[in-house]
Amino acid sequence: MKKLAPLTQLGCCYYPEHWPQHLWQSDAERMVDLGLSVVRIGEFAWSRIEPSPGVFDWHWLDQVLDVFAQVGLGVVLGTPTATPPRWMLHKYPDMLAVDKLGNPRKFGSRRHYCFSHVGYREESARIAGLMAHRYAQHSALLGWQIDNEYGCHDTVRSYSPVARAAFNDFLRAQYDHIEHLNSAWGNVFWSMEYADFADIDLPNLTVTEANPSHCMDFLRFSSEQVVRYNQAQVAAIRAFSDKPLMHNYMGRIIEFDHFRLGADLDIATWDTYPLGFLVDRAGASPEWQKRFERQGDPDLQAMHHDLYRAVGRGRWWIMEQQPGPVNWAPNNPAPLPGMVAFWTWEAIAHQADAVCYFRWRQVPFAQEQMHAGLLRPDNQPAVAFAEVKATAQRIAELGPLEFDQAEVALVFDYESCWAWEVQPQGEHFDGFALAFEFYRALRRLGVNIDVVSPQADLHGYKLVLVPGLFTWPQSLIRAFATAQCRFIVGPRSGAKTPDFQIPITLPPAIAQLACKVTHVESLAQGHEREWRGGGTAQYWLEHCEVGEGVETLESLVDGTPTLFKQGNLYYLAAWPDATVLGKLFKQQLRELEIATRELPEGVRQRVARQHEFTFNYNPFTVEVAGRSLAPGSVDIRAR
Amino acid sequence: MKKLAPLTQLGCCYYPEHWPQHLWQSDAERMVDLGLSVVRIGEFAWSRIEPSPGVFDWHWLDQVLDVFAQVGLGVVLGTPTATPPRWMLHKYPDMLAVDKLGNPRKFGSRRHYCFSHVGYREESARIAGLMAHRYAQHSALLGWQIDNEYGCHDTVRSYSPVARAAFNDFLRAQYDHIEHLNSAWGNVFWSMEYADFADIDLPNLTVTEANPSHCMDFLRFSSEQVVRYNQAQVAAIRAFSDKPLMHNYMGRIIEFDHFRLGADLDIATWDTYPLGFLVDRAGASPEWQKRFERQGDPDLQAMHHDLYRAVGRGRWWIMEQQPGPVNWAPNNPAPLPGMVAFWTWEAIAHQADAVCYFRWRQVPFAQEQMHAGLLRPDNQPAVAFAEVKATAQRIAELGPLEFDQAEVALVFDYESCWAWEVQPQGEHFDGFALAFEFYRALRRLGVNIDVVSPQADLHGYKLVLVPGLFTWPQSLIRAFATAQCRFIVGPRSGAKTPDFQIPITLPPAIAQLACKVTHVESLAQGHEREWRGGGTAQYWLEHCEVGEGVETLESLVDGTPTLFKQGNLYYLAAWPDATVLGKLFKQQLRELEIATRELPEGVRQRVARQHEFTFNYNPFTVEVAGRSLAPGSVDIRAR
Amino acid sequence: MKKLAPLTQLGCCYYPEHWPQHLWQSDAERMVDLGLSVVRIGEFAWSRIEPSPGVFDWHWLDQVLDVFAQVGLGVVLGTPTATPPRWMLHKYPDMLAVDKLGNPRKFGSRRHYCFSHVGYREESARIAGLMAHRYAQHSALLGWQIDNEYGCHDTVRSYSPVARAAFNDFLRAQYDHIEHLNSAWGNVFWSMEYADFADIDLPNLTVTEANPSHCMDFLRFSSEQVVRYNQAQVAAIRAFSDKPLMHNYMGRIIEFDHFRLGADLDIATWDTYPLGFLVDRAGASPEWQKRFERQGDPDLQAMHHDLYRAVGRGRWWIMEQQPGPVNWAPNNPAPLPGMVAFWTWEAIAHQADAVCYFRWRQVPFAQEQMHAGLLRPDNQPAVAFAEVKATAQRIAELGPLEFDQAEVALVFDYESCWAWEVQPQGEHFDGFALAFEFYRALRRLGVNIDVVSPQADLHGYKLVLVPGLFTWPQSLIRAFATAQCRFIVGPRSGAKTPDFQIPITLPPAIAQLACKVTHVESLAQGHEREWRGGGTAQYWLEHCEVGEGVETLESLVDGTPTLFKQGNLYYLAAWPDATVLGKLFKQQLRELEIATRELPEGVRQRVARQHEFTFNYNPFTVEVAGRSLAPGSVDIRAR
Repeated sequence: MKKLAPLTQLGCCYYPEHWPQHLWQSDAERMVDLGLSVVRIGEFAWSRIEPSPGVFDWHWLDQVLDVFAQVGLGVVLGTPTATPPRWMLHKYPDMLAVDKLGNPRKFGSRRHYCFSHVGYREESARIAGLMAHRYAQHSALLGWQIDNEYGCHDTVRSYSPVARAAFNDFLRAQYDHIEHLNSAWGNVFWSMEYADFADIDLPNLTVTEANPSHCMDFLRFSSEQVVRYNQAQVAAIRAFSDKPLMHNYMGRIIEFDHFRLGADLDIATWDTYPLGFLVDRAGASPEWQKRFERQGDPDLQAMHHDLYRAVGRGRWWIMEQQPGPVNWAPNNPAPLPGMVAFWTWEAIAHQADAVCYFRWRQVPFAQEQMHAGLLRPDNQPAVAFAEVKATAQRIAELGPLEFDQAEVALVFDYESCWAWEVQPQGEHFDGFALAFEFYRALRRLGVNIDVVSPQADLHGYKLVLVPGLFTWPQSLIRAFATAQCRFIVGPRSGAKTPDFQIPITLPPAIAQLACKVTHVESLAQGHEREWRGGGTAQYWLEHCEVGEGVETLESLVDGTPTLFKQGNLYYLAAWPDATVLGKLFKQQLRELEIATRELPEGVRQRVARQHEFTFNYNPFTVEVAGRSLAPGSVDIRAR
Repeated sequence: MKKLAPLTQLGCCYYPEHWPQHLWQSDAERMVDLGLSVVRIGEFAWSRIEPSPGVFDWHWLDQVLDVFAQVGLGVVLGTPTATPPRWMLHKYPDMLAVDKLGNPRKFGSRRHYCFSHVGYREESARIAGLMAHRYAQHSALLGWQIDNEYGCHDTVRSYSPVARAAFNDFLRAQYDHIEHLNSAWGNVFWSMEYADFADIDLPNLTVTEANPSHCMDFLRFSSEQVVRYNQAQVAAIRAFSDKPLMHNYMGRIIEFDHFRLGADLDIATWDTYPLGFLVDRAGASPEWQKRFERQGDPDLQAMHHDLYRAVGRGRWWIMEQQPGPVNWAPNNPAPLPGMVAFWTWEAIAHQADAVCYFRWRQVPFAQEQMHAGLLRPDNQPAVAFAEVKATAQRIAELGPLEFDQAEVALVFDYESCWAWEVQPQGEHFDGFALAFEFYRALRRLGVNIDVVSPQADLHGYKLVLVPGLFTWPQSLIRAFATAQCRFIVGPRSGAKTPDFQIPITLPPAIAQLACKVTHVESLAQGHEREWRGGGTAQYWLEHCEVGEGVETLESLVDGTPTLFKQGNLYYLAAWPDATVLGKLFKQQLRELEIATRELPEGVRQRVARQHEFTFNYNPFTVEVAGRSLAPGSVDIRAR
Repeated sequence: MKKLAPLTQLGCCYYPEHWPQHLWQSDAERMVDLGLSVVRIGEFAWSRIEPSPGVFDWHWLDQVLDVFAQVGLGVVLGTPTATPPRWMLHKYPDMLAVDKLGNPRKFGSRRHYCFSHVGYREESARIAGLMAHRYAQHSALLGWQIDNEYGCHDTVRSYSPVARAAFNDFLRAQYDHIEHLNSAWGNVFWSMEYADFADIDLPNLTVTEANPSHCMDFLRFSSEQVVRYNQAQVAAIRAFSDKPLMHNYMGRIIEFDHFRLGADLDIATWDTYPLGFLVDRAGASPEWQKRFERQGDPDLQAMHHDLYRAVGRGRWWIMEQQPGPVNWAPNNPAPLPGMVAFWTWEAIAHQADAVCYFRWRQVPFAQEQMHAGLLRPDNQPAVAFAEVKATAQRIAELGPLEFDQAEVALVFDYESCWAWEVQPQGEHFDGFALAFEFYRALRRLGVNIDVVSPQADLHGYKLVLVPGLFTWPQSLIRAFATAQCRFIVGPRSGAKTPDFQIPITLPPAIAQLACKVTHVESLAQGHEREWRGGGTAQYWLEHCEVGEGVETLESLVDGTPTLFKQGNLYYLAAWPDATVLGKLFKQQLRELEIATRELPEGVRQRVARQHEFTFNYNPFTVEVAGRSLAPGSVDIRAR
């Protein structure tokens, strides 16, 4: 797939339905003047497109598209299915999702639908199809966004009666005979055996924890329902349009498999709010939150950029970029001056095709009235306006960037996140956090990283990291046997069969590695075990029995071995802290002749073929390679 | 309105229905002997007055009133509507309130009714009318208390089907056409537009937060339902009696508008439990809680005294004064020796007409068996008994007190508390807490303060403080144009239109002040910003654009301006910490020639025309003006 | 009652239904080889015994018993009623328990039944009777276990409609006339009077706390429902078998009265998981948790051993002993090497008749797949295997142990735990914790302790401790008048009548002790009051009025007296911290000529007639009496 344009495009999210018609033309002209070329519209406007069932008002939308076409802006048109209008509930009172405690999740905000509701799925396909039919040929049309932020507000998993029925069907299709399910789940344990698929309830509100196999299948099912729901709209649009299909993912939402969903789309986009994410999703300590409160976590955005580049098979955008203070985090400070440009450059350095700001103008009413825009509610430029203008000019000056495949790949797997959520075994075992700490440790060494799915083609990588992979896909089993790269596997990789059982030969269950994890320990915070040579094992520690040909490379102070090597396979039997990870990875990269760079804390880099980007995430000036980087500033230089 | 008596009266709360009849006479005589002149009875006795529907037993109550009349005690008779008997549920199974999660709030304690239930409202008026009819002319009768502690146990807001229907009616009356509501709420956002008022649900259990305008109207509605419920009893009693009507409010309950409700009554009374409030309602740090554990917060009672003096239009009582350890706080220490007298004197110094102790005798059964009384369960005097006796004598010795209007007014607004609860924007933004910190800073400077409603007549004040006022009432708009006093407005005042939208010209939206809040930051604890000259801005910081004629008086170390002045209007663009508030207010009071007094921490004063009261809230002795104040003691001297 | 065998037997828990049939024989042989003589089976196997209603498969169980008989293993056969099969719900959809918030507790794990459901009680008796009928005469049969871990997963208290109806019946039987109940509960308070037993709801979801008498009767009822449920199975088994009946209790589950339930059984057994309990149930500080993370709390197991010895009237077992890391605590470290043996020896030193390890082999599927066994999932010995083997040999070498009655008794009462749960009055008042702190302070002094019920025969004790006993049973009233031992009573003992009222003569209401508690204070953590001579009163402090003949022995720095003495009765008017308890108890033991021993922290001992066991719970070596004890090691020597 090719990029839409040689240079990263800038854009914004716009809601014509929120503003008087007389502003549309001047808004469009000011966008162009600012240097924007893309505008996303429509994704919450169902009540204005179809004010009552079957009664349509396309007129205003026609007009808006024409205005944009006229000034030369490309439009991403969103299907409005994240916000079913109130009348939809008259038609389908049972379409609401139900929370884990059994309460329906009521109308009055957004995303109030259960992915398993067939009626609503059809309504969604209907409205998407009607939009595609009407606008497929419009000259302003750049592409489609389906729905909005799947999974936001914890909406993937629903415990409704329709979800229960669909789950029964899912299991029936999966297992065919109930005895296969009983055996796969080990239902003989605690007399949980079922006589019929219809007897299987959702795994909420059980007396104590439900069977992990039961939970795992429910989480797989829940992810699959998002994929199916999305496919219905894909099909409806594809009947009329061959423009690129997109979805705007969120940060650290792992409840559905983005690789699976992304396979049906053309471009991955995501919505990035670095300041809110720092508090909510980066797992940051209070000191870290204080240091980066107005800049965001130095690695969280980057990891998502690399992840969504994989999900989009090379084509990815930021669809919503925080442009100032937002409204939804526990506290909402303002970004440091320059940060909006800084974040934009980081996306560019990670190969973004486009960066859109959310939103054009701050809206004075409803839930997001305290969310900044590029313009203030009084239509004057907000702080970020000038930063965007300068960025647009600099992009043009810099010209096209070229990138090579990274030498290091980090395997990230959604299913594994679900598995360790189902069975953490220790309160700190979190699949995303484990991958993120590996990512951060690598990035601190200045290397480019590709985040890849477990099914990815690993050709061309020198080092592949596989932390916490629940179970082995065929592709990796083959790769262990044939690939030339070095693998660092573990902790907890290959710990289960696909049915969520312990492999009878014990983990990690790799034919080429004579190592068995005999038992594991989970460790509370403050109960870390000391690593020989400095640092600690935290949260998770495995005890292994190894066979011939296995070399022990690292161990704890108490003698417990923690890193094994057999051929090009390394097994890491603990969750190392940052100190240990840093040392280990530096050693590995050196051995593999991958260039590293010593960077001060809070400074990160990304390397293009002819350019090097250095980012100072700190709230103070740092000296890097003889140059002085101001707080929240980026240094771009030729290589 | 005049006071009932020239001296503050003392009294107690008594439950004849809890005790054998043979105790009534001796109890009454001991009350008189102690120096009490008022007794409140009846407010939980419905099951004894009307044991089954329509079957009455007035006899015991007749007798009790006669006993009190005979010894010369004045009786406040409570309507028993806070405790509907069990049989009421047979009549109205749907009268129970429903909590935010959808669970009915069951029988078995008290306040188990939904304010919107019309049947129960009629039953309440019926029993109130019957009591009024029977006792209006009784010689013991001093006045009426309607219901008990509205809002206690979080009972203002109910999510029941009857509340939903009443809310629909409330909105219909408010907006007339559904399009007016859609427009006022901005329902185009997220396609939340309604076709009919009947489609509007209560704003609980939504997927993510509901529209703030929706929430705000629900909170207004909930407050209004309390007012209407109360009015039904007011009318029922007024049909037979012209004795004063009262209600006993609680501390820091802000879910209904006490000014609105109080307008229908003659006297405001409140129930003060300083030790429990210290933990639950004063927002105190652990150190503060430790220091004042047996004395209570030094300012919380005082602020409520001043608030309820306003609510009662000058006539206010303590209806329930903590007399020893209570049962309901997380921990329940005993007051320091002398504190019951101390608290009584503080009320007197704030112009209370009466102080009643809760309760006469500790009851050995049911929910409050661990709540102290003036007598122990074995009928012997408890610790406070002697303190009350000495206080009664000292009141008589001291003679009548006279007070002048304060020079400083603090505007307190219930609606604003709801607004910032709906949309805190930062986890620490709490309307009551903001007002309370302003109050505390002023009181530390030794000045008398009047707490006033936003509609109050501001004549006679030199300084008026308006922190965090959601929206401008007409009265204040006029006052800005005409009043002679100095106003300190903000932070966050005038931040919204009455519909809960951002004013399109930006806050604070005062014609006489050329200042626009362009954006705000909310700050986590520990993320304060330094104030030039010492102290910090905490929790909340605004960025302003000012026009001609506006002078900048204060700013942060980073240069952000924080205090503006234009004519007699000052705008404070941050929530200052105690250090900054102390300095600012001292400067202001000095400029306005209002006398201040340097008091050691934990010492407070209140000034009458001929007397000065100095209160040592500390658990240790302090020296003030050459005199030594023992822990928990009050010093009264002539001026 | 006699022990089953002169030496403590070792055993394991085994699930033949989880494993292929071909393993049964070798498993049995390996058990014998390891030194085991007991095996428990069957308690979760209902779906394999009765796969559909009325259709039985006894064949596999017959075979298993025959295999065990053949190798000489004794079998404890469990009734499988803790895991009703899925088909049971078709028969009784209303059998599920309901949680406090009103949600049914669904199928999908275990213990999903309401103790009040008559249909399920009959089904339980039916399956128990069928098993008894079939296997009563089997030569392998050693005894019966009824159900499994009553109360685990908070399952004693159910708020279901069937529980409500049964509670009404319970109250009707208890009070006969509704007026008796109204009077006992003090329902005149807050007009809570009832006209009919059927009007009484369960005390959940009330607006504020329900009447403590109401709550207390509900907790008594809930306990009684467990007893009745158990009795149904007792009767069903007793119809065919006179082998010993057992139940496996858990640690720190106090929701039902184990003394009442145990009276219907022959042997008390319990399930001990020291590492998980340290975090969940020992109330340990972070430092304590860190120090003992791989050994468990030094006193929690011991106290339960002593408690269950009383519940079993001298006959007690460990039915499930943690053999390695488990799966259910927030974090699950591995025991220190040697700890499994250590724990076994501690049980032996407390007179256990048997110790069984849970489980024979780690199962690779379902909820407990991460729970260690003596064998790993790959059928190789796990860490504990060798420890068990060595322990079995050492038991045989050591020969039978003999024990004397302890000189010190600690009264422990389940009803009191409920009472203080209903009315803690201070957030830290917990009945179990109070008794546990007394136990720990005594044990630190090296004495053997008997934990006894309030009804126990106190003959032979020198010192009897009665902390926090809710109300006086007749047996103790008699003992105060006649017993020769010294009693240390309080704090909070005798604080209530059986109806949950304050005794009208005030607590502690002991005829022989002229002391009245006039009022109490509960104290927050950090708000302790200093004790004269060092240490503090924590959480709870009483103020007393004493009469003639009462001597004051201890007091606070502020002069508040805290320990009184009259004859052989001592009253402790505070909850002392460990420092004070240590000093007090040492003084008392010295006066009573009970031998104490100074032990380093973390070291404990237990004394048999000819042997002395010293346990080093510390993670480091300590010197005790000139000998060096390794971490987690036990020293056994002849006296």
